[in-house]
Amino acid sequence: MTRPSGRNANALRPVQITRHFTKHAEGSVLIACGDTKVLCTASVEERVPPFLRGAGKGWVTAEYSMLPRATRERVARESAKGRIGGRTHEIQRLIGRSLRAAIDLKGLGERTLWVDCDVLQADGGTRTASITGACLAVADALLHLREQGRIAALPLKDWVAAISVGVCQGEAVLDLDYAEDSTAEVDMNVVMTGRGEFVEVQGTAEGAPFSGVQMEQMLALARAGIDDLLALQRREFPEVER
Amino acid sequence: MTRPSGRNANALRPVQITRHFTKHAEGSVLIACGDTKVLCTASVEERVPPFLRGAGKGWVTAEYSMLPRATRERVARESAKGRIGGRTHEIQRLIGRSLRAAIDLKGLGERTLWVDCDVLQADGGTRTASITGACLAVADALLHLREQGRIAALPLKDWVAAISVGVCQGEAVLDLDYAEDSTAEVDMNVVMTGRGEFVEVQGTAEGAPFSGVQMEQMLALARAGIDDLLALQRREFPEVER
Amino acid sequence: MTRPSGRNANALRPVQITRHFTKHAEGSVLIACGDTKVLCTASVEERVPPFLRGAGKGWVTAEYSMLPRATRERVARESAKGRIGGRTHEIQRLIGRSLRAAIDLKGLGERTLWVDCDVLQADGGTRTASITGACLAVADALLHLREQGRIAALPLKDWVAAISVGVCQGEAVLDLDYAEDSTAEVDMNVVMTGRGEFVEVQGTAEGAPFSGVQMEQMLALARAGIDDLLALQRREFPEVER
Amino acid sequence: MTRPSGRNANALRPVQITRHFTKHAEGSVLIACGDTKVLCTASVEERVPPFLRGAGKGWVTAEYSMLPRATRERVARESAKGRIGGRTHEIQRLIGRSLRAAIDLKGLGERTLWVDCDVLQADGGTRTASITGACLAVADALLHLREQGRIAALPLKDWVAAISVGVCQGEAVLDLDYAEDSTAEVDMNVVMTGRGEFVEVQGTAEGAPFSGVQMEQMLALARAGIDDLLALQRREFPEVER
Amino acid sequence: MTRPSGRNANALRPVQITRHFTKHAEGSVLIACGDTKVLCTASVEERVPPFLRGAGKGWVTAEYSMLPRATRERVARESAKGRIGGRTHEIQRLIGRSLRAAIDLKGLGERTLWVDCDVLQADGGTRTASITGACLAVADALLHLREQGRIAALPLKDWVAAISVGVCQGEAVLDLDYAEDSTAEVDMNVVMTGRGEFVEVQGTAEGAPFSGVQMEQMLALARAGIDDLLALQRREFPEVER
Amino acid sequence: MTRPSGRNANALRPVQITRHFTKHAEGSVLIACGDTKVLCTASVEERVPPFLRGAGKGWVTAEYSMLPRATRERVARESAKGRIGGRTHEIQRLIGRSLRAAIDLKGLGERTLWVDCDVLQADGGTRTASITGACLAVADALLHLREQGRIAALPLKDWVAAISVGVCQGEAVLDLDYAEDSTAEVDMNVVMTGRGEFVEVQGTAEGAPFSGVQMEQMLALARAGIDDLLALQRREFPEVER
Repeated sequence: MTRPSGRNANALRPVQITRHFTKHAEGSVLIACGDTKVLCTASVEERVPPFLRGAGKGWVTAEYSMLPRATRERVARESAKGRIGGRTHEIQRLIGRSLRAAIDLKGLGERTLWVDCDVLQADGGTRTASITGACLAVADALLHLREQGRIAALPLKDWVAAISVGVCQGEAVLDLDYAEDSTAEVDMNVVMTGRGEFVEVQGTAEGAPFSGVQMEQMLALARAGIDDLLALQRREFPEVER
Repeated sequence: MTRPSGRNANALRPVQITRHFTKHAEGSVLIACGDTKVLCTASVEERVPPFLRGAGKGWVTAEYSMLPRATRERVARESAKGRIGGRTHEIQRLIGRSLRAAIDLKGLGERTLWVDCDVLQADGGTRTASITGACLAVADALLHLREQGRIAALPLKDWVAAISVGVCQGEAVLDLDYAEDSTAEVDMNVVMTGRGEFVEVQGTAEGAPFSGVQMEQMLALARAGIDDLLALQRREFPEVER
Repeated sequence: MTRPSGRNANALRPVQITRHFTKHAEGSVLIACGDTKVLCTASVEERVPPFLRGAGKGWVTAEYSMLPRATRERVARESAKGRIGGRTHEIQRLIGRSLRAAIDLKGLGERTLWVDCDVLQADGGTRTASITGACLAVADALLHLREQGRIAALPLKDWVAAISVGVCQGEAVLDLDYAEDSTAEVDMNVVMTGRGEFVEVQGTAEGAPFSGVQMEQMLALARAGIDDLLALQRREFPEVER
Repeated sequence: MTRPSGRNANALRPVQITRHFTKHAEGSVLIACGDTKVLCTASVEERVPPFLRGAGKGWVTAEYSMLPRATRERVARESAKGRIGGRTHEIQRLIGRSLRAAIDLKGLGERTLWVDCDVLQADGGTRTASITGACLAVADALLHLREQGRIAALPLKDWVAAISVGVCQGEAVLDLDYAEDSTAEVDMNVVMTGRGEFVEVQGTAEGAPFSGVQMEQMLALARAGIDDLLALQRREFPEVER
Repeated sequence: MTRPSGRNANALRPVQITRHFTKHAEGSVLIACGDTKVLCTASVEERVPPFLRGAGKGWVTAEYSMLPRATRERVARESAKGRIGGRTHEIQRLIGRSLRAAIDLKGLGERTLWVDCDVLQADGGTRTASITGACLAVADALLHLREQGRIAALPLKDWVAAISVGVCQGEAVLDLDYAEDSTAEVDMNVVMTGRGEFVEVQGTAEGAPFSGVQMEQMLALARAGIDDLLALQRREFPEVER
Repeated sequence: MTRPSGRNANALRPVQITRHFTKHAEGSVLIACGDTKVLCTASVEERVPPFLRGAGKGWVTAEYSMLPRATRERVARESAKGRIGGRTHEIQRLIGRSLRAAIDLKGLGERTLWVDCDVLQADGGTRTASITGACLAVADALLHLREQGRIAALPLKDWVAAISVGVCQGEAVLDLDYAEDSTAEVDMNVVMTGRGEFVEVQGTAEGAPFSGVQMEQMLALARAGIDDLLALQRREFPEVER
């Protein structure tokens, strides 16, 4: 099988990270995974939601959106429709849970990190690129807090990165772009920590169900791909000792 | 470790199926998994959504809701709040995808099956009980169509059943009730077909991330539990030759 | 005239009451009036709405909903439509007012009773069945509060029950089912107390207006029907001395 | 008992009718019942809602609103709140049903009458003033259609008028103003036709329930008050032969 | 060029002011500019929005709405649509800013003035009539506060009035009615103070863009028209020494 | 007076234009005016809104949004709030009108241009930067249509550009950044065509009203600034002969 992009089954697309892409946010990272480009910002608010008041720990919440013409066909804004769709809800909950696995909420103190992932251009894998990039935006926001002396130690328990895997024409492949994603039989998103443990595994049979063997193949591909992403995260953030 | 319910790690709660629970719906099944009780109905509409018109096949869509006092604490109705929350969106998309794996949409013809899963009483595992019960409500609706001569063959490709597994106090367990679910370290929902293949795997680390070994243990428990549910489905529907 | 059900003009449908139908709510009653089945729960909240804070008395509020396939044709959920319709508003205001006539709000203390009436199956008369059943769910919730010692005396001023009457083919009839309700010339809902006084009278000419004589006939039928319902309520709740 | 206004128990407030109050609407009537002032307009649309297409008859629908400062305290606009409240829903459904009792929908043809009742100043009884005034606005709109030759005969089956009655300090009174309405034990709205038959009767015990005798007293007061309103309608519309 | 109304290019429509048009509001003015009629009320609330609490000054906010049949064709209510449209937002922000230019917010104290402009009948220029009338309703509300001794001095810095100008068939004209407004090439709204300074200038080329010369001509017409409106305001409020 | 940025009163901030910033949209331009950065895309849809069907001409509509952390303080998404605010409505209507002045809608044919202006980073003047950039994105979309042979001639009547002017500490200045904008006494946005005519003039006194002389000074500054922007537009689009 030849992939539409000509990549090998286990090949990631080129990843490019730009720190400090915009100037107001405490953390602002543009991540490009091939033609998928997501602007991830992390904003610090000096209070927590009502359900956590006085609990002596912080919170992390994520929002995700696509610019209307990030995609092949223009998609109506959710603000214009007056409601957030199911897919968006699903993705922003996934990003939030993934980040909370990386952050020591006690160490963060009574603060909220608002993480915004805005897709400027989409070519498959926007949710996993969001997670990988958002973790970096969070790191920058935490470094900013430490520089300002508002926290003593960096409350980053571990790096977190994510990738998609799938089954296309019967074969397990890594990091699907849009051409593959739209025709894949199985689509799976995997989120892992720097220590090689799972945070999330979400596999969906789009057409036919998948076997236990295919699942193992996909997990192996995901593990290798995420290792590369984690190495990249560490290289981009030499000031984080991890 | 002793489970709050005293069950073994690999023990399902008792399951009870009541067909024809209400009288108007083409399919109406009350499923009780321990103290979790879900009313699943399947309604037939003789047309498809706009994006499928003229495509010569049908559609299946699912909605999920909890009665306000299905839970320990009363939860405000989503109709009163004016919007459907992220959790609900996530669950009804999961149910819909799972059912579409069971149904031959071509064989259904240009019809929509509306599947409603309304939780009358909740004690953990409402989304997996919904899937297992909804598949039966769909079977009854399809049998009804066949009896009326509106379809020739039953467009049911396979049974579909679902169960939750998780890690509690470091140990993998099957079919979490609320007491376990609310404190589990890992929560995973697995949906499988009658042929033993995966439709959905959604694992989430609530506290600490989980290892590959734990993942394998959970998948093994899920597989065994789902086998029991599938046997039950077949027993309840002798008229479906499968 | 023969009624579709074969009942006499002054005959109620069989009524069946199931206390403690679900386990979490302080009061939970399933009421079946013929094929109309409503699950009524009463939930206790230990505070009152802002407009009553510090007023030394409680509040009772009611919500009403039908499961999407409680009816012949599936009806879209109000949560999916994002707004509660006029009919629902009208009914839940009616239920709330009726219950407040039965309850001694001072005796309740600064608590809110949330009453939920969810129609599992509809065959006419859902709003009056809701009132009759909700009064029982409230009684159970109040008994629960007294058992726990949170209130000394039962703040139930009186029983409240409701029934529909109407004019069908020129004749006054009691307790209309769907077949009658959908073609009746006049539809009237009557709510009365255990002492035989009116709480609500809502009569509507659907087709032709009605005379004073017809009104008297309908009120007489309603009074007799409600007497039977009140007797049933007292029989089901021997622990309430009333 | 002395009423706050000094009126006798059976006395209406002075009623003033101004036809053609605004210039664009086919029917536009300002009705003043004491200090309650409602602008009622009737607009003709040359089509019917989808559920009536091709049925060879028309439709009448009503909307009701209060200007924010029609009342003692300013009330937030429902447009600003983004939703129509339960009270408004209840009232506009009542107005619509009442008008449909007056109009021959077949004779109207495939047209919709949009009736808007906007309360400029409120002092109790806004819903009944709306009905009495709206019937006149409709009459003017129908006269307009006849003048233009779009209909041959006036499809007005009868006049319709409405009044409130209630129990204040134990005594039945007619046409409650705000001072009475806000403290009444019982509040009842009655809608009748020119032939003296009932269209709607809606009685509500606000505090204590009411007896059958009180109900009869209220209905007698209502009947007399509505007779006066009907006479006034006829006097204002000499061109309607009825 | 002859204007549809036969007026000269620099002629205002007749303006009529009715103070105390409704009885509850602290200020209530009906302003008629030709056939455009707007009811403007000003309501006093004894607190300010959160962002101003403790700032020692007041706030003025405006809302604008048209009755559904104020216009040639009936327009659906924004409450029924569930959202306020862009045009309404634009107008109410304009009215609010204009009034804040007239009022000494410090002198008002920690109070909010809610200004409601409800168009009873529309014939062009509703937003400028609203501003001119609202300023008077505010004046009446402030006089009321002074009479009650709640403020010592009248916190009215200046009068504010507004008018529309435009270019029709190449010629600059003053105070466009609907017939002109709907076909004008340029539409400009001008708001000025009693001292002859600008508060707002909003010019829009509907068809072709406009030259600097045309702009000067329109501003000259507006200045003269507003001078007349200001004279009228002063004449109607002899008790305001300004 | 020294401006916060050190610029002269008549100095524009540096402007940078990046064509083809994203790959899917027919036109995609990133415009940076100092630290204000807006991504403008133009999308072609092969149909028009209902009110224009069969009219033989096209339509242009604009949407405007800010990323949540484009600003100093994070601003909640309008999609999360469920409604678009007044400021956004005002701006997108302004952008739409401005673009319609530049485009020959007949020449466009029965197509809609959807123009999206998304502010990635804000530092004052986002609406005028949006207009100047959106005109270029539209030009690119039209060039794309011509290259594909879907239109013969470029339906671009003229260039359109916009700038803000204002009064700061009594002095008229050009192109306000956030530091100035937030404290300016007057804020005016001016939109002009390549032929030097006005499309929009929107001046607002934020604090004190402004004189006719100040207005003339602001218009002169705007004219000069827009001349520079128009020169830049022409330089960036040598393939447009204008």
